[in-house]
Amino acid sequence: MMTTMRFYSWHVAVALLDNFLGGFMRLAMIGLGKMGGNMVRRLRRGGIEVVGYDRAAEMVAQLAKEEGMIAAASVAEAVTKLSGPRIVWLMLPSGEPTEQQIRSLAPLLAKGDIIVDGGNSNYHDTQRRGAWLAEQGIGFMDSGTSGGVWGLENGYCLMVGATPAVAQTMTPILKVLAPSVEHGWAHVGPVGAGHFTKMIHNGIEYGMMQSLSEGLDLLRGKQEFALDLAQITELWRHGSVVRSWLLDLTAEALQNDQGLAEVAPYVPDSGEGRWTVIEAIDQGVAAPVLTLALQMRFTSQDETGYGYRLLSTMRNAFGGHAIKHTPVKHTNK
Amino acid sequence: MMTTMRFYSWHVAVALLDNFLGGFMRLAMIGLGKMGGNMVRRLRRGGIEVVGYDRAAEMVAQLAKEEGMIAAASVAEAVTKLSGPRIVWLMLPSGEPTEQQIRSLAPLLAKGDIIVDGGNSNYHDTQRRGAWLAEQGIGFMDSGTSGGVWGLENGYCLMVGATPAVAQTMTPILKVLAPSVEHGWAHVGPVGAGHFTKMIHNGIEYGMMQSLSEGLDLLRGKQEFALDLAQITELWRHGSVVRSWLLDLTAEALQNDQGLAEVAPYVPDSGEGRWTVIEAIDQGVAAPVLTLALQMRFTSQDETGYGYRLLSTMRNAFGGHAIKHTPVKHTNK
Repeated sequence: MMTTMRFYSWHVAVALLDNFLGGFMRLAMIGLGKMGGNMVRRLRRGGIEVVGYDRAAEMVAQLAKEEGMIAAASVAEAVTKLSGPRIVWLMLPSGEPTEQQIRSLAPLLAKGDIIVDGGNSNYHDTQRRGAWLAEQGIGFMDSGTSGGVWGLENGYCLMVGATPAVAQTMTPILKVLAPSVEHGWAHVGPVGAGHFTKMIHNGIEYGMMQSLSEGLDLLRGKQEFALDLAQITELWRHGSVVRSWLLDLTAEALQNDQGLAEVAPYVPDSGEGRWTVIEAIDQGVAAPVLTLALQMRFTSQDETGYGYRLLSTMRNAFGGHAIKHTPVKHTNK
Repeated sequence: MMTTMRFYSWHVAVALLDNFLGGFMRLAMIGLGKMGGNMVRRLRRGGIEVVGYDRAAEMVAQLAKEEGMIAAASVAEAVTKLSGPRIVWLMLPSGEPTEQQIRSLAPLLAKGDIIVDGGNSNYHDTQRRGAWLAEQGIGFMDSGTSGGVWGLENGYCLMVGATPAVAQTMTPILKVLAPSVEHGWAHVGPVGAGHFTKMIHNGIEYGMMQSLSEGLDLLRGKQEFALDLAQITELWRHGSVVRSWLLDLTAEALQNDQGLAEVAPYVPDSGEGRWTVIEAIDQGVAAPVLTLALQMRFTSQDETGYGYRLLSTMRNAFGGHAIKHTPVKHTNK
């Protein structure tokens, strides 16, 4: 922790110097939720001026008070508080909220201004939006953003798609958001390439999580050995081949509670796992483990178990095997 | 690298002090290959006296010369150079070599002596051997050992199964082999539990490797974006959710060569991936991704592609779909 803090201070000092030499930068952040709010904090601590807007006025007020963010009561007002090239960074739910915001924002901007989509948009949408904005001379950057709630302290891993010119304009901001000035951010390709890279990152994440979870489940299943999952995951963090940030987080969680009695066996999924599997089909490239990791989440989400009830019925039909009668919670399927 | 070296020196100093306070320890290492040889080096640098034997006399001579290891010309001679409780650590291929060595070694030992199996034995074998040695009053410890060729520098992650008494005797040695005196080694349960834990560790490793590989394959497959896999894997090392030691190694390899033209698409597997999948069946616990990761290695190993040739033949049979005629390398199947 101490090392992180020391490193963080050094990083901020370098970023401040960088900004001082390059002239102070200002951007608008639209969407001040879990991700956007913390990104404002990190930007502010790195010396970037931020105009912030969120539908939730209390978030705006809090960040204005705590971080010296410039409050805006609407997106339009936020735009008026910028000067060219105006940069508007969106941290909104993907799909319709992002789509509508870009549609309504574009008429407020002028040639040379830049919109950044830092959310988890589908890269096909990003390519379409980029082309539409380019027709109007508005720059567009997609930033796949990883790091979750730990990003404020550790920095965000930023996968950026943009033209070289837009990427260059945005570089001082990327250096502040990233884990360090030199590492953890990169201009990986044209518009769309950032969200594409983030999508694949999340697909890999599904597979790694499922792998860890299945293995730990087998450790727990070997009752004869009465293994301590907290001890073993902590052990594996040091020198093992599976050491990873996901293992670090898992070890910490199991340290507190390895029974997990309060956690329902239900794993939600967001768009990117699904899009990765669709991408594999579009490419005709095999990604069976990433596909299966996603399908296992679907299985966890199926509270009716209708498929299993069918299988049990078939076994009974052809072999007379007994059906286990247990009331199911939901029978609406 | 600097940090690692500094840490290593401190670690050795603590281990030396530990040994000085506890009386110097000596053990015999049988098997001085990639793993055993480097473990001798690490033990020697940590102040442990080592008597070494290997079928390859040049390995014995080299370690004697370079590390001050006490050379033995046979296992029997190695045993005579120990005093009670005599500790003999085996780093041999699993299966018959380990089995035969334990069988022939036991008559040379006496009550209170200890055999350690640091290899990748099947835990069922380990339990059987432990019971057989216990009948003769000989202690047995299984140490699942992870860290590969990096273990010399970073330390080995040691998953230990043994009685509490045997584990206590072995503790000073474990502290030297591990990444640090406090971390990366643990007595996880009774005899067999160490190899069991290592087996599951390797099963997880298969799933994590397959996940990374499938995702990177999709990145490469998106030719429109011309993504640089070396850049992206290096980027992900900083602040992303998939950051891991496997990613570190992959990023380094891709830095040198991302075409991989010299690498055949053939992935061997060793016992532990298979045993993990058998364990899932024995427990009746689902481990679909670990199972599939193993099956994908089998697919890579199948140079005849007979299954695919069958599928293509079936498509032709029912739908008249054209068969692609390409000479296959091996048609012995």
